[in-house]
Amino acid sequence: MTQPRILTLLTDFGLSDPYVGVMKGTIAQINPHLSVIDLTHQIPPQKIGMARFALMSAFPYFPAETVHVAVVDPGVGSSRRAIAVAVGTDPSQPIGFLVGPDNGLFSGVLSQHPVIAAVELSNSQYWRTAELSQTFHGRDLFAPVGAHLASGVALAELGHPIAPETLIQWQLPNCSTDQWDQARQKITGFLQAIDHFGNLITNIPGDRVAGKPWHIIVNGITIPGQQTYADQPIGTLVALIGSHGWVEIAVNGGNAEARLLLDWGKPVQVIVEANSNDTAGC
Amino acid sequence: MTQPRILTLLTDFGLSDPYVGVMKGTIAQINPHLSVIDLTHQIPPQKIGMARFALMSAFPYFPAETVHVAVVDPGVGSSRRAIAVAVGTDPSQPIGFLVGPDNGLFSGVLSQHPVIAAVELSNSQYWRTAELSQTFHGRDLFAPVGAHLASGVALAELGHPIAPETLIQWQLPNCSTDQWDQARQKITGFLQAIDHFGNLITNIPGDRVAGKPWHIIVNGITIPGQQTYADQPIGTLVALIGSHGWVEIAVNGGNAEARLLLDWGKPVQVIVEANSNDTAGC
Amino acid sequence: MTQPRILTLLTDFGLSDPYVGVMKGTIAQINPHLSVIDLTHQIPPQKIGMARFALMSAFPYFPAETVHVAVVDPGVGSSRRAIAVAVGTDPSQPIGFLVGPDNGLFSGVLSQHPVIAAVELSNSQYWRTAELSQTFHGRDLFAPVGAHLASGVALAELGHPIAPETLIQWQLPNCSTDQWDQARQKITGFLQAIDHFGNLITNIPGDRVAGKPWHIIVNGITIPGQQTYADQPIGTLVALIGSHGWVEIAVNGGNAEARLLLDWGKPVQVIVEANSNDTAGC
Repeated sequence: MTQPRILTLLTDFGLSDPYVGVMKGTIAQINPHLSVIDLTHQIPPQKIGMARFALMSAFPYFPAETVHVAVVDPGVGSSRRAIAVAVGTDPSQPIGFLVGPDNGLFSGVLSQHPVIAAVELSNSQYWRTAELSQTFHGRDLFAPVGAHLASGVALAELGHPIAPETLIQWQLPNCSTDQWDQARQKITGFLQAIDHFGNLITNIPGDRVAGKPWHIIVNGITIPGQQTYADQPIGTLVALIGSHGWVEIAVNGGNAEARLLLDWGKPVQVIVEANSNDTAGC
Repeated sequence: MTQPRILTLLTDFGLSDPYVGVMKGTIAQINPHLSVIDLTHQIPPQKIGMARFALMSAFPYFPAETVHVAVVDPGVGSSRRAIAVAVGTDPSQPIGFLVGPDNGLFSGVLSQHPVIAAVELSNSQYWRTAELSQTFHGRDLFAPVGAHLASGVALAELGHPIAPETLIQWQLPNCSTDQWDQARQKITGFLQAIDHFGNLITNIPGDRVAGKPWHIIVNGITIPGQQTYADQPIGTLVALIGSHGWVEIAVNGGNAEARLLLDWGKPVQVIVEANSNDTAGC
Repeated sequence: MTQPRILTLLTDFGLSDPYVGVMKGTIAQINPHLSVIDLTHQIPPQKIGMARFALMSAFPYFPAETVHVAVVDPGVGSSRRAIAVAVGTDPSQPIGFLVGPDNGLFSGVLSQHPVIAAVELSNSQYWRTAELSQTFHGRDLFAPVGAHLASGVALAELGHPIAPETLIQWQLPNCSTDQWDQARQKITGFLQAIDHFGNLITNIPGDRVAGKPWHIIVNGITIPGQQTYADQPIGTLVALIGSHGWVEIAVNGGNAEARLLLDWGKPVQVIVEANSNDTAGC
């Protein structure tokens, strides 16, 4: 570790109560020299999916070995596992660490980066106190563990190893070839986020449709895929590759969430027509 | 002082205007190496009681010698005193410092920790400028004094000493034995906070009722004391020991503030029945 | 540069999404030791005028050489210039640096401080990547350039020089002598901000009216200038010198914005009667 690790915080605690300040106090008790960056604390309460997307989106913009402590934890006090994960390909320099509950919160990052190692946080030596509160593992468990990890404690010290394939993952997009038309691909996915413009962001990567004719089907509605908003009248429903790089549904000059009344998690299907010079199938 | 002191900020300034940023700029002008942690800036305007509870709740989670600058200050420009206080038992290492107006804001922390020394901030050498604005002592007085204190200036340098017993305290819970029944205790207190779930938090410590039969009376309503929510139907008013360790009034699956329409400061009375093996009385 | 430069951030990104956290990650990738202070991220979307006033108000309270990165940028992706400016009088120690779009955002600071040097940010070596996104120059351009500047890179390295007089300025107050009465000054200006009390803050400095009889005319209404709120009944419209040092319109105990329904940018006229011992005219 050539320089101090950065520690980020992502929660649904809001900023009205001093909960986030208390997590930072707990971190400062362990190492007052750590640099702590807030990702956001305004995830809607218990919305794991929103937190998953925010963390996945922010993850690439941090230095190697940054420790991301994320606490959106409806299962606190239940038997859900508390975990720390190193991701990347080089065990001597992970591109990042994840610390928090094993509830799908990390499944976005994990869909994009391989796991180097994962542990369940069973070593109470790195907790604030050996006995945890029932309600505030952010303060008692995750912040202290993150602080120790950012201070150079080895991942393997924090608990017993767990198999990467047991970490909670959410379904990745599934691709199949149309049985009636071998030149068509059907990709199924879901709405993984809604941004503050009301754009509906699927979990289907834009490069799956780029440069080919395509359309998306959601809730029985078919929306043609476009390259840009440009040629569409104001108020038109469009499907396109959004600024985050995912297939999105938007309304030109309007709000797709309000128009379609669709919520997070809704299944979608993308139909891609193979170009003549493409191999058919997925 | 073996390592840099942490400085925390707690205000009712909100985050829309750059007031908090300006306080941090003022601090950086004095010592750019200080580590500043926000407790919260979203105390409802001038709600000293909410600030008092937030500071008291967060205080135990910070390193020794942390400097807490708190500015919820409806009396700014009046004759209320500006103070700094060292709390703890070891004068060579206070567990924390408090800097702000003497208006009850610190009375929560002061109800739980002894005062080592207190001063009125009369030494203008440690202010931003010798002349204070009428409206922004956070910038002109409290942030600079906090920054100097966190940088190692001695408390006694900041002004003239004042007697700890003159600091504004709020009434502590009062306990008396029922004149008709020597085995009953009556503890009077008040609602000291309302959390974002609408739970009504009294200033009566939970250990005063733990393990005994008890009930609480507020606004003419009697609510039986429970150990947990567990056995109560959804929607039931319950009194219990909350996660902060205080006697609370809650609605199982609901909002006690909305149900009872009670505000901060409302008096409450807790009746405790002594166990047979208890000494009667307080 | 004797000590680390501070970097401040001012945006309209809000705190719900991790955009601000991503800017800080980008900064930490360049220099994890920089100290970053948030001015505010709750400028109403694309309200350059509100950002201009917030930055101008906060600017004097930061250490010399602080780098202020401000991103309220409705023209992102258009041909508006991206700039960095050193302000002050001593080229060897600027009182501050400004980094952001050239859209008037800096015109408040620039109305109060001379320019030492200005550059257009054409050197892609200091961007996050040589190719910019169409939508997020805060992350890709301004945060990285600010981080390099705060780390000691010379302003001239960041791009090609531009003439200070070409920077976008907003109209300064204009003063003329009344053609019918040489002892009257007419000063025209505009509403440059509305604070959270609903006070309407003009861009006319208070020292232009201090100690003389004056009144202000806005939207056809004449409001007499006062020294304080003191003698006015609750609910009275008053004009006075506000706490920021500007001529303001307020309602004693009320909200002038709600009363007058005036928005940012509205022209105002102040009439000042010269004292007998004053020279007439401007």
